[in-house]
Amino acid sequence: MQLGLVGLGKMGGNMRDRLREAGHEVVGYDRNPALSDAENLADLVAKLAAPRAVWVMVPAGVTEATIDELAPLLSPGDLIIDGGNSRFSSDGPRAGRLSTRGIGYMDVGVSGGVWGKENGYGLMVGGSDENVARMMPVFEALKPAGEFGFVHAGPVGAGHYAKMVHNGIEYGLMHAYAEGFELLEASELVTNVPGVFRSWREGTVIRSWLLDLMDLALTDDEHLEKLKGYADDTGEGRWTVEEAIRLAVPMHVISASLFARFESRQDDSPAMKAIAALRNQFGGHAVQQAG
Amino acid sequence: MQLGLVGLGKMGGNMRDRLREAGHEVVGYDRNPALSDAENLADLVAKLAAPRAVWVMVPAGVTEATIDELAPLLSPGDLIIDGGNSRFSSDGPRAGRLSTRGIGYMDVGVSGGVWGKENGYGLMVGGSDENVARMMPVFEALKPAGEFGFVHAGPVGAGHYAKMVHNGIEYGLMHAYAEGFELLEASELVTNVPGVFRSWREGTVIRSWLLDLMDLALTDDEHLEKLKGYADDTGEGRWTVEEAIRLAVPMHVISASLFARFESRQDDSPAMKAIAALRNQFGGHAVQQAG
Amino acid sequence: MQLGLVGLGKMGGNMRDRLREAGHEVVGYDRNPALSDAENLADLVAKLAAPRAVWVMVPAGVTEATIDELAPLLSPGDLIIDGGNSRFSSDGPRAGRLSTRGIGYMDVGVSGGVWGKENGYGLMVGGSDENVARMMPVFEALKPAGEFGFVHAGPVGAGHYAKMVHNGIEYGLMHAYAEGFELLEASELVTNVPGVFRSWREGTVIRSWLLDLMDLALTDDEHLEKLKGYADDTGEGRWTVEEAIRLAVPMHVISASLFARFESRQDDSPAMKAIAALRNQFGGHAVQQAG
Amino acid sequence: MQLGLVGLGKMGGNMRDRLREAGHEVVGYDRNPALSDAENLADLVAKLAAPRAVWVMVPAGVTEATIDELAPLLSPGDLIIDGGNSRFSSDGPRAGRLSTRGIGYMDVGVSGGVWGKENGYGLMVGGSDENVARMMPVFEALKPAGEFGFVHAGPVGAGHYAKMVHNGIEYGLMHAYAEGFELLEASELVTNVPGVFRSWREGTVIRSWLLDLMDLALTDDEHLEKLKGYADDTGEGRWTVEEAIRLAVPMHVISASLFARFESRQDDSPAMKAIAALRNQFGGHAVQQAG
Repeated sequence: MQLGLVGLGKMGGNMRDRLREAGHEVVGYDRNPALSDAENLADLVAKLAAPRAVWVMVPAGVTEATIDELAPLLSPGDLIIDGGNSRFSSDGPRAGRLSTRGIGYMDVGVSGGVWGKENGYGLMVGGSDENVARMMPVFEALKPAGEFGFVHAGPVGAGHYAKMVHNGIEYGLMHAYAEGFELLEASELVTNVPGVFRSWREGTVIRSWLLDLMDLALTDDEHLEKLKGYADDTGEGRWTVEEAIRLAVPMHVISASLFARFESRQDDSPAMKAIAALRNQFGGHAVQQAG
Repeated sequence: MQLGLVGLGKMGGNMRDRLREAGHEVVGYDRNPALSDAENLADLVAKLAAPRAVWVMVPAGVTEATIDELAPLLSPGDLIIDGGNSRFSSDGPRAGRLSTRGIGYMDVGVSGGVWGKENGYGLMVGGSDENVARMMPVFEALKPAGEFGFVHAGPVGAGHYAKMVHNGIEYGLMHAYAEGFELLEASELVTNVPGVFRSWREGTVIRSWLLDLMDLALTDDEHLEKLKGYADDTGEGRWTVEEAIRLAVPMHVISASLFARFESRQDDSPAMKAIAALRNQFGGHAVQQAG
Repeated sequence: MQLGLVGLGKMGGNMRDRLREAGHEVVGYDRNPALSDAENLADLVAKLAAPRAVWVMVPAGVTEATIDELAPLLSPGDLIIDGGNSRFSSDGPRAGRLSTRGIGYMDVGVSGGVWGKENGYGLMVGGSDENVARMMPVFEALKPAGEFGFVHAGPVGAGHYAKMVHNGIEYGLMHAYAEGFELLEASELVTNVPGVFRSWREGTVIRSWLLDLMDLALTDDEHLEKLKGYADDTGEGRWTVEEAIRLAVPMHVISASLFARFESRQDDSPAMKAIAALRNQFGGHAVQQAG
Repeated sequence: MQLGLVGLGKMGGNMRDRLREAGHEVVGYDRNPALSDAENLADLVAKLAAPRAVWVMVPAGVTEATIDELAPLLSPGDLIIDGGNSRFSSDGPRAGRLSTRGIGYMDVGVSGGVWGKENGYGLMVGGSDENVARMMPVFEALKPAGEFGFVHAGPVGAGHYAKMVHNGIEYGLMHAYAEGFELLEASELVTNVPGVFRSWREGTVIRSWLLDLMDLALTDDEHLEKLKGYADDTGEGRWTVEEAIRLAVPMHVISASLFARFESRQDDSPAMKAIAALRNQFGGHAVQQAG
């Protein structure tokens, strides 16, 4: 089928390739003319036959503006799919606004990173049964072969919600491996830490794709000496904990993983300055002067 | 090669099968005569040609006693392999005691659970290069086919250490999925929670063997209504956090997973009784009477 | 000075008493005629001389509606003080709406609980210098004697913000004592747990008012057997962690205290059901059936 | 009464002063001749009339050696009191060894830091009723005036146990205030953070001696810019969490406080290096190179 695709960066570009390999006709638009199949959004829309389906795959920060610019160019019966990392709570209002123009809306959480082009993308979809059925050929092409990698999670918003939880779990999984790595590195007994991670790839309870990647990373750099212990966070981890708070769900593990990222970006910890100050006050404990 | 195997329970019994399928001669002993190839430990030793290798695969609580009973029956040049879940700190002293009799010692952390017979067992080995080489045919038969599933992690103790960290990581991984499950169940938007987990099995960053098992569990029991939220802990999780404390390794995630298991076994929380008492004292907040 | 006071419950009623003892003229309104000095809000306003100051001291859930009803009855130059537990983020918009009518606004976080009438109330104030100066006689009467118990924390919103953080800290403090209580109760060595808490009231680093209350609670009920380990949460704890997430502040302790309250209200833990399900899948570990 | 006191450092020296002010005869020994009343331990013992009581107040690392040197110099009926920060688990064995010589033993956890000389020391005592009664005059002199500040917590070991829990709670309390400080510092609304802490000293639920100290620290250094966020840990925090693990007591708050101290002493976090490595592997996320 024919699909408009807005945003041809690291994710969108690979998705265009995968869709075309599957025989779909993709008209892509990107601000970078070297990547783009259309001059601008209006040109993109003009190149598509109604009823149109336009997949928006841009950074979360510009999704709203992109859809606001796109919507007036579309016609009743057209459909917008947001495959970016929007907060789930923006989906319902957005769908409402578009419906006043007769435009449909779906949200798709897309996992897989740079490996998705080859392995397929995990897709978590929110929207009506009708719209899911309409886009199924595209989903079939993007998802991995076989019975997994796709879910119609619920109504509009459920796709981004499932992707948000996916990323929250990802934070926790990564931190569990990371704590294990740090302990093994500190141990006097284990002399072959990369070998331990490598061995775990088969036959163990903790085998996973993330573990495979950990093996690759340690093959490159046995003690990870080339990297700083620094990690950004991209929104979904925060939203996951916010939802846990809203819904009164205990979330010790994922929140701790999120807080560890915050800590990784601090030059010094204001909280630990307060601890040092208190210890100095009550016990005359030695403190370290800043600078 | 020939191997004595003490303990033919859920793990040992399957390992005997897998070893025999690979062409090894296994003489097994178990307290249960229906499972055993020998009448007692002395009979087991008598059935083995020196220099003997005896793999002990019994519950951690009886490992020490089993080895104490076995050692006097063996001869210099024989080798004991502990494949159970001993604390790593017992390996060094045990090896020392056995060496005074001229008996060698290795520790092997074995992962894989009830699926190991078919998939192979992940093996983490601690011991001398010489002893590892000697037992390599057995390890080859037990481990999964291919390049993974086996590591010589370091000297005596390193095998159990690596297995301990494996299980600590396992606690954290399981709890990350568990928190994600609880949040999805609480969500108003996601109407197909089992489908979400099922979809994650391919194409996502969080795909893993544990996730596959989570899919199987949810296929059986969509909301896990048949189970109580109760979990024992088998030692390795506690030891992992103890080691983190000894080595000053921050371990927020794995410790939180461990504490959650403790909580799962409490009828009521003494700590939360204290919170309730304090709130009642300062704010006249309503409290719930026990019983 | 003259003050209108809306809400004469556990907090407002005691505050009226304390203000009157200090010589202020308080006209109170409450939905309960037995407590009220005025028939309704209009009557309250009519009984006050312009420029009026009206302190709203009602549950957070009805503050917005109360102010919406009150504002049209007031005149330019009047001042509303919200002393309830509103979320700080509602203060700025509320002040903006009132300013279009020429009505001033301040927010005051009030601590002290049922003991405030006697000890004085800790006051954290947000608003303009001018409005703080105007209300200073009332603040002086409510606060404890001496140099502490009052702060002008910043502009509108800062009072509720400081109170929110106060309550977040309170969660953490209470849980630290609670964990200590649970450990002492579990210990085989310490046979006089109430005596230990009682002793800590003087001479120690951890002496505090909460500790005094813990002593009182244990004097009543040595093992807290009369209470269930159940605790509600009233908003500020959640908002504190939400702010930590927004501002990338690591908050392991206060979030853990909050999550413990969530757990205290669960009959069974969905997360731990997932752990039980996974353990059953991979290890054939015994599980407990629900019900 | 007469008391021998070994160790006249920051704690022991002040305790000697406080005891003498109360009319007791103290013979002190310290390796530093300028502080010492005796030339060596033998001289100290010679200066005391039997039955002797010797209070050992030395760093935890040298307590065992000091007692081993002292014991042979004493006579049956003499009594050793360990007021240092020994691990509670060493008390029972130590008492057993001393009892073979007819020497009694008590353990006393002592709180109060540099302020104890003036305010009195919080005392948590483990030992027999007989020994407690024998030393009561000394305890009365050291403890704060009034009904608090002293407990006979249980048999030998219980004093150090109670002190260990005291310090564990202290970790949690300090970290709760520290998190609050960090959030207030990050807030855009609160412009007077030291004033907020100062106000909390009276009328609030969170007033405490630690809060008073926080006020003093912020009076010196409004943003704690002079200090590094660095904190050692002295053993009791680790032991508290170890006991929690042994006794299956959930301990999210105190363990998080302990882990934060570990983190404060790391130049970079190995765990976060692993997170950075994984993110780089799966997402091509930008990483920061070390150095």
